[in-house]
Amino acid sequence: MKITDAGVTAPKGFMAAGVKAEIKYKNRLDMAMLYSKVPCVVAGTFTSNIVKAAPVKWDMNIVYNSEFAQAVVINTGIANAGTGKQGMEYCENEAKLTAKLLNIPESAVLVGSTGVIGNQLNMERLEAGINALVKELGETREHARTASKAIMTTDTKNKEASAEIEIGGKKVTIGGMSKGSGMIHPNMCTMLGYVTTDINIDKELLQKALSEDVKDTFNMITVDGDTSTNDTLLLFANGMAGNEKIVSEDEDYKKFKEALHYVNETLAKKMAADGEGAGKLVEVSVINADDKEKARILARSVAGSNLTKAAMFGNDSNFGRILCAMGYSGAKFDPDKVDIYYEAEGKKMLIFSDGLKADYDEDEATKLLDHSEVRIIADMKEGDIEATAWGCDLTYDYVKINADYRS
Amino acid sequence: MKITDAGVTAPKGFMAAGVKAEIKYKNRLDMAMLYSKVPCVVAGTFTSNIVKAAPVKWDMNIVYNSEFAQAVVINTGIANAGTGKQGMEYCENEAKLTAKLLNIPESAVLVGSTGVIGNQLNMERLEAGINALVKELGETREHARTASKAIMTTDTKNKEASAEIEIGGKKVTIGGMSKGSGMIHPNMCTMLGYVTTDINIDKELLQKALSEDVKDTFNMITVDGDTSTNDTLLLFANGMAGNEKIVSEDEDYKKFKEALHYVNETLAKKMAADGEGAGKLVEVSVINADDKEKARILARSVAGSNLTKAAMFGNDSNFGRILCAMGYSGAKFDPDKVDIYYEAEGKKMLIFSDGLKADYDEDEATKLLDHSEVRIIADMKEGDIEATAWGCDLTYDYVKINADYRS
Repeated sequence: MKITDAGVTAPKGFMAAGVKAEIKYKNRLDMAMLYSKVPCVVAGTFTSNIVKAAPVKWDMNIVYNSEFAQAVVINTGIANAGTGKQGMEYCENEAKLTAKLLNIPESAVLVGSTGVIGNQLNMERLEAGINALVKELGETREHARTASKAIMTTDTKNKEASAEIEIGGKKVTIGGMSKGSGMIHPNMCTMLGYVTTDINIDKELLQKALSEDVKDTFNMITVDGDTSTNDTLLLFANGMAGNEKIVSEDEDYKKFKEALHYVNETLAKKMAADGEGAGKLVEVSVINADDKEKARILARSVAGSNLTKAAMFGNDSNFGRILCAMGYSGAKFDPDKVDIYYEAEGKKMLIFSDGLKADYDEDEATKLLDHSEVRIIADMKEGDIEATAWGCDLTYDYVKINADYRS
Repeated sequence: MKITDAGVTAPKGFMAAGVKAEIKYKNRLDMAMLYSKVPCVVAGTFTSNIVKAAPVKWDMNIVYNSEFAQAVVINTGIANAGTGKQGMEYCENEAKLTAKLLNIPESAVLVGSTGVIGNQLNMERLEAGINALVKELGETREHARTASKAIMTTDTKNKEASAEIEIGGKKVTIGGMSKGSGMIHPNMCTMLGYVTTDINIDKELLQKALSEDVKDTFNMITVDGDTSTNDTLLLFANGMAGNEKIVSEDEDYKKFKEALHYVNETLAKKMAADGEGAGKLVEVSVINADDKEKARILARSVAGSNLTKAAMFGNDSNFGRILCAMGYSGAKFDPDKVDIYYEAEGKKMLIFSDGLKADYDEDEATKLLDHSEVRIIADMKEGDIEATAWGCDLTYDYVKINADYRS
C-alpha cells in the first residue's frame, strides 16, 4: 500500500466540485458534488439514531435497492432533519435536477445534508447550487480539496485521505473526504464521509468491507456522545482501474480492505482531532484483552468520558477517571489487574498498576500530557486482543461553540 | 405529609456531627458522622460501576448481611477507590475505632468516602477525626446542617430535606442529606446520600421502598454521564417513632413511601441544580408514553446530552438536539408524532409538533430559557405514563472545575 496525498478525485473517473450557494451563510463554500463518469456500485453505513434525516432515508433506499449510483450532492448549514414530508421532497427534487443535468437516472443520485435540525431548505438556492456544481466538476487535486472544504461546518480543517494498491498488475486508488466536529459519537458512522475508488468489485463484498471496517474506524471516534441524525458514510467503486472483478474474499480483497482501512482510519482520526473546541487528539488503546467487542467498549467509554476529557484539557494525570470510565462501561473485567499508561512522542509512563497508583512523578505526567497527540493505554492482561478509540479533550471552546451554534 | 425544613437529626434518636480533619485540605469541614441511639435496620443502594471503592464494598456487606446498623462515618477529599487491600483495611480500622468509642458492634458501623481516586488515606488524621466527631455528636438542627456541610466536595450548597407523616397516631419523621456535583449519572444512586427515619419497619420492606424509589429519584439525575465508583445511598430506620411495625405493603407503607419519595426527590433535584458549574436546573419530562422504562430512558438521554446541555447554557432553543438525543437513546418511538415544549415559571411554549418545527418566536423562546429552572416536555402521544429526569446546563465552569480538580 502506498499512502498518497490526494482526495476523492484520485481514483480514475471521479470528478468533484464545491460552490458557495448561500444555503445558510453568505460567502462560504456550502455545497459539494461527487460524480463518476461511469456507474458505480455503492456501499453505505448510516446513523443508528431512529430520528433519521431525510437524506439518510433517501440514501439508504438507494444503497439497499439501486444496482448502481453515480453522483452525490451535499449541502451544509441545514440538516434537513425533523422536516417531515417536505424534507423528503427536497431530496427528490435535488436528485431529479442533478440526474437531468448529468444525464443519469434519478435512482443513481445520492444526497447529503448537515447543519441545524428543524429548518427547511430553500429549493431555489439548492437549484442554483446544483447548476453551479455541475459546471464546476473537475478531476484535479484542487477539485477534490474544494469539495472537501465545501462539506465543513464547525470543522476547522478539511479532511482527506488516499492510498494506492496494486491488484493483478493494475493500480487501484482509494480517496476519501469527510466532515464532522460535533454531534460525534460512535454508533454507526457519525459524520458525513465519502470514499471513492476505481476498483472493480462485487457490490455485496464492497458493503461487507465497509460495514466491517467502520467498527474499528468511524465507530471508534467520539467527541461529545451525541449520535447525529445525519451520519452517512458512502463508498463508491466505479471499476475503472480495470482489475479483474473481485468476487470473493481472496488476497486481493484483503489488500483492498487494508487500504480502505487506512483511508477510513485516517479520516476518523482527523475528525477526532478536530472535535469541536479540541486542543488535542486523545487515542485510547485497550490492549491484551480477551474479547474484541469488550476492548472496543472499554476504549470508547474512556474516550467518551467528560471527566477524562476535561482532565486531558488540564493535563491532569487523573487516572481515577479513566478507571472509573472503564468501570461503568458495562464491560466485565478485574480492576485489580489493569495497568494504565500514558504515552506521547514515544515516551511511555506507567500510572496505575495491579489496582494501585504507580510510583510516578506528577510533574512528568503533566508534561507528558501537554502534547497535541496523547495516548492512554489500558493493559487488561487477559489475552491478546486490542482496540483503539479516538477522542479529544473537553474545552471551554466546546461549550462556547455549542452554547450558541445557530447564531 | 408535612414538608419541614430539617435534616438527618429530625427523626427521634439520631445524632450528627461534622469536623475539620485535614483529610486533604486544611480548614475545611471534611468528616461527618451519623449515629442512632438505638440499633437501626438499614437499606442501601450502591454504584453499578464495577470499579467499587473500598467503603462501597464495606457498606454492601453490612447492608446485605448485618441485621442492624447504628452509625456511619464519612470523609471527603480522598475516595478510597483504586486503593487495593490497604483501602479495605482503612474501612475496617475506621469501623473498629468508631465501634469502640460508641460502644456498638463493628458490624454496625458503615463508612463513606468521596474525593480523588487512587490516593491512600492517612489513618492518623482519620483517627483524630473520628475522635472529634464522637465528641461533637448532637441532635440539634445545627448538628444536622454541619454534617451536611462536612460531606460537600465541589458542591456549592449543602443539601438537606425532611418530611413528617402520621402512622397509627404516631408522628414519623424522615430526614436526609446528600452530596454530589460532578461524576453524577443515573446508574444506581450516583452520590453519597444518607436518609434517617424513626419509623418502625421491617428491613426487607425498607430495602424494597428504597430500591423502588431511587429509580424515579436519584437514578434520574445526571450531570456529566460519569457514574462514580463511590455512589452510596443509605437509609436508616431506628423504630423510635413507636408505630406498630410495618410488615406488609399496607396503607402505612404507602404513606411512608410517599414521604421517602419527597425526601429523595428533593435531594436529587438539589444535586442536579448544583451540578458542577451549573447555571440552571433542567427538568426533562416525558409524558403520555406507553412504557415507564422507555419514558425514563428518553428523559435521561435528553437530560444527559452534552449538546442539549450546552444549548441550555446559551438559552438557545435548539430543539433538534432534544429530538436527536431522544433518537439515539435506544428507545423506540415515532419521531413524527412527538410534541416538544419548553416551560419556565408557569409559561409553556410549543416548539416542535408532529415532526415539524412549530410556529414560535425565537426571541420569546430565548427569554423563556433564561431562567434558573427550565422544563423540557416531550409529549409522546402514545399512552398515559410519564417520567422525569433532572440535569443542568453545560458551562465553562464545568470544564474549569474538571480540567484541574486535583490541584
